[in-house]
Amino acid sequence: MNKIREIIKKIVPIDKTSFLRTQEYLDNLTKPIGSLGKLEDLVKKIVAITGKKKPVIKRKLVFVLAGDHGVTEEGISAYPSNVTAQMVHNFIHGGAGINVLSRYIGAEVIIVDIGVAEELKQKSDKLKIKKIGYGTNNFVNGPAMTLTQAIKSVETGIKLVENELRSGIDIIITGDMGIGNTTVSSAITSVITNKTVEEVTGKGTGITDTKLKHKIKVIEKAISVNNPNKSDPIDILHKIGGFEIGGLTGIILASAAYRIPIVLDGFISTTAGLLAFLFNHYIKDYLFAGHCSQEPGHKIQLEYLGLDPILNLEMRLGEGTGAVLATCIIEASCRLYNEMATFDSAGVSKKLKDRH
Amino acid sequence: MNKIREIIKKIVPIDKTSFLRTQEYLDNLTKPIGSLGKLEDLVKKIVAITGKKKPVIKRKLVFVLAGDHGVTEEGISAYPSNVTAQMVHNFIHGGAGINVLSRYIGAEVIIVDIGVAEELKQKSDKLKIKKIGYGTNNFVNGPAMTLTQAIKSVETGIKLVENELRSGIDIIITGDMGIGNTTVSSAITSVITNKTVEEVTGKGTGITDTKLKHKIKVIEKAISVNNPNKSDPIDILHKIGGFEIGGLTGIILASAAYRIPIVLDGFISTTAGLLAFLFNHYIKDYLFAGHCSQEPGHKIQLEYLGLDPILNLEMRLGEGTGAVLATCIIEASCRLYNEMATFDSAGVSKKLKDRH
Repeated sequence: MNKIREIIKKIVPIDKTSFLRTQEYLDNLTKPIGSLGKLEDLVKKIVAITGKKKPVIKRKLVFVLAGDHGVTEEGISAYPSNVTAQMVHNFIHGGAGINVLSRYIGAEVIIVDIGVAEELKQKSDKLKIKKIGYGTNNFVNGPAMTLTQAIKSVETGIKLVENELRSGIDIIITGDMGIGNTTVSSAITSVITNKTVEEVTGKGTGITDTKLKHKIKVIEKAISVNNPNKSDPIDILHKIGGFEIGGLTGIILASAAYRIPIVLDGFISTTAGLLAFLFNHYIKDYLFAGHCSQEPGHKIQLEYLGLDPILNLEMRLGEGTGAVLATCIIEASCRLYNEMATFDSAGVSKKLKDRH
Repeated sequence: MNKIREIIKKIVPIDKTSFLRTQEYLDNLTKPIGSLGKLEDLVKKIVAITGKKKPVIKRKLVFVLAGDHGVTEEGISAYPSNVTAQMVHNFIHGGAGINVLSRYIGAEVIIVDIGVAEELKQKSDKLKIKKIGYGTNNFVNGPAMTLTQAIKSVETGIKLVENELRSGIDIIITGDMGIGNTTVSSAITSVITNKTVEEVTGKGTGITDTKLKHKIKVIEKAISVNNPNKSDPIDILHKIGGFEIGGLTGIILASAAYRIPIVLDGFISTTAGLLAFLFNHYIKDYLFAGHCSQEPGHKIQLEYLGLDPILNLEMRLGEGTGAVLATCIIEASCRLYNEMATFDSAGVSKKLKDRH
């Protein structure tokens, strides 16, 4: 727990007075004032987070954390549990959505087995084995993991970021893989945001209406059996969490501590965002909502955190795919900021004085 | 007019039966069914337009057409008219928003002087001089251009595309520059969509409320003085058009004729989209709405054409900037389609059969 405490202490609010200075510079670029819309907000936030006057987004790291969930034995998913491991192999071979999009935007993918239910046979330098357990326990019957495992999952995430610091990281993108993890995320979201389970539960990878009703009942039971303390992120992880969600929470905390912008993907990543927010409210300053997922609870999470999603493409694939696409837009905003000519340098006339 | 007639005849509806085949293939990729959301619609449209089973978006062409507008003498813009020429120089030097974003996505920018009010001194192989006039006439006093000029502007656009066909074009992005062209676009949009001038007129590059009221009156007067035939695109261009808008109309028509997908930028580009639609209703099949501009009339145009914007970033810069960013998303959808593993090839289990 010391490691977590240390990291949390390092997270400070970003210097929002820099917004004005960045806006002033933006207003000198050869474009009508404010005409880059949300791109102007993106670059202002990047400058404030990194403290760099001309932020360049070069090394983009996607962390895809994979873990299994005991609750799958309740039949809450459209896919069998062993798809988690199969998809990890797919990640290694570069055939998954996140691989394609990361190649497209030039991001590195770090795949982490933080709790897949089986031993992954294939070795690869792209895959880090940081197993905390072989899947969580079925949280309908009691805690999903031990307190020690909950702490370890967050610490694992922190270390994943710290291990990459030497090479420099310009932006971190969160991704996940874990059959059953929308069930877990709905449970956590309901507890933290005070919304009913029904409001924050969706069809995940694509279940029927009947199965959705069952999924809601399973989640309600898990919350009532475990009764997690809604202001204690470790207690929540311990009782109704998942290893990949704990790991992502650690990644988010460490990114903020080291002043690295974080692009959240969808429902699972933003669940980790909620937990990180419980650890330290300043975390919000460092988060970008990559997109708005089709999973209904995601919108509620974003509203809770006060984040405005960059993209709205009705995606619900996870893995970090929506966040990687959004990173294009963030990178583009920095490129505009760094490379556009000013009115003076280009010899372009400024706006006419308004005559009333 | 023969050139235009020829091109219009070549535009055929896309083969929408291919949507099913493309969807079938998408459903075999290692992802939950439908989980790529709007990206799946994008790639289905690209496959249908191009007729290519594995469409690769390599050569991306941005046409930025620049022209001036006589109506600026009514004081309807926040910027002086000579900014059009100044911005063309900025385009040549690579300092404008469209240059930065095109470099970022690897697109070529073709700048065209189709009607800038002054002689552009600087020569550059990036700039094509296709002047139809030195700015249009002030349409408050009568037609903006002659009938011959209206036809020539569309033909110029067609030729611009035809000149580039030899090297192959995978996607065309429309861009514009012309102080005063939101005024012209509002006039055209009001006439074609039957909305009041007030509904389709906004603050353009950033005028005051007082100036906005004046702008609306100027447009109302222009429409009443000229009384354009709302179902005749050439008559509309002749009476209340702009050279760059006519040129973009030709570019759109030719792209569709040669089965090249077109990404529209904002309000000005979509005005050309409306005119192209009047020439041939099948044009809709070939259009992608890159983004939704902050200019209020743009939303009305998109609804009229039944187009769903890819991005919604509150931009209103023009030049093609929103469309270039959206092209990233379209390209990403093709990459996913071409590069993702299938369930079989990756050895991933398919969805469980639903048990009720």
